[in-house]
Amino acid sequence: MRWNKISDAVIRRLPLYLRVLDELANESDTALISSQELGVKAGVGPALVRKDLAWFGEFGKQGVGYDVGFLRNELRKILNLEQELTVALVGVGSLGEALVRYHLKRYADNDSFNLRLVALFDSDPAKVGTLVEGIPVMSLEDIPRIVEEEQIKIVVVAVPADGAQDVANRFIRAGVKCILNYAPVKLTTPDTVQVASVDLSLELQRLAYYIPKHPN
Amino acid sequence: MRWNKISDAVIRRLPLYLRVLDELANESDTALISSQELGVKAGVGPALVRKDLAWFGEFGKQGVGYDVGFLRNELRKILNLEQELTVALVGVGSLGEALVRYHLKRYADNDSFNLRLVALFDSDPAKVGTLVEGIPVMSLEDIPRIVEEEQIKIVVVAVPADGAQDVANRFIRAGVKCILNYAPVKLTTPDTVQVASVDLSLELQRLAYYIPKHPN
Repeated sequence: MRWNKISDAVIRRLPLYLRVLDELANESDTALISSQELGVKAGVGPALVRKDLAWFGEFGKQGVGYDVGFLRNELRKILNLEQELTVALVGVGSLGEALVRYHLKRYADNDSFNLRLVALFDSDPAKVGTLVEGIPVMSLEDIPRIVEEEQIKIVVVAVPADGAQDVANRFIRAGVKCILNYAPVKLTTPDTVQVASVDLSLELQRLAYYIPKHPN
Repeated sequence: MRWNKISDAVIRRLPLYLRVLDELANESDTALISSQELGVKAGVGPALVRKDLAWFGEFGKQGVGYDVGFLRNELRKILNLEQELTVALVGVGSLGEALVRYHLKRYADNDSFNLRLVALFDSDPAKVGTLVEGIPVMSLEDIPRIVEEEQIKIVVVAVPADGAQDVANRFIRAGVKCILNYAPVKLTTPDTVQVASVDLSLELQRLAYYIPKHPN
């Protein structure tokens, strides 16, 4: 498996670098960037920037830096962003709707991120058949057929905690290998499936560490 | 500043360990846990578990492991979770409402996480004065007064991208040092302020790396 070779901590930082390069490419004529500057903008130390990128090849020149356009293209290739990213979302409650309206639909306009939200699913028969931002909501029974037809690569799970494992299993059985989980529960999945979790409670507990002990 | 001493990568893993210990404490009579077992359950290598915890003291005994109850208490102290965590949320749209209903209100029932959601804010005059899960929505003008009165420690920003920096600035001026940002934009903040960002696009780009190149 490819993902056993390079640490996920490295992979997590690549989108941060790509975002910096996207901004540079859109906003200015900067042709070169040093690892120092890339690190500062991405919030990563310069030595770590060089180490991370070295996993994938020789992208920069000593004392010259990285070519912005070239490195951007290479990162997009490494992250599979040159292909169309077909995404489904399950759970069209208030969270799911917000993710569709304010996030997933926005990315469709982003030229360095070829995302297409192709399907929505919900277990509530009253929602099935309705449209959210022009995308029809389908029944959970339709998952295998739609995953196959639309070649869905990533599913965003936005259902309540007690339904998350069941819907994840349905997508895994249908062949989906990447899950972005917003439900506040840890999913049990085979090793061949990659899960990213967005967990408010973990983020809050981490932030709590930084609360000043002695406020002024 | 305390947070310059220990890497945030370490701090990020502490809540994962704490979650494992919480589950063990609630579900079983396990009194001891090895770094191996703690690592497997938290998804972290055992050597890293030992290294992370060693930053804060000597919590385990060679060949014996960690005392579950003791380590849990120590982690709660390190993460400032023994004090009440007073939280505000700004932006009561569909995302903000979902975070309140399905996440923030749930944590109030969690005995190892002393969170109290004390205030909601929105710029829309039609929302100000309404209640969400029993919590009144207030105007942005009320931020300085409420932060002071309620001693708010963390703010969750759930407004659209173009309003995020302005509301963040208002909370920073009022004295809040920890921000959890759900808006799809990078906030500019002083070094004394800690920001955690939940960014769907970065998570999706990271997941894209794991899409199999040659589907079966």
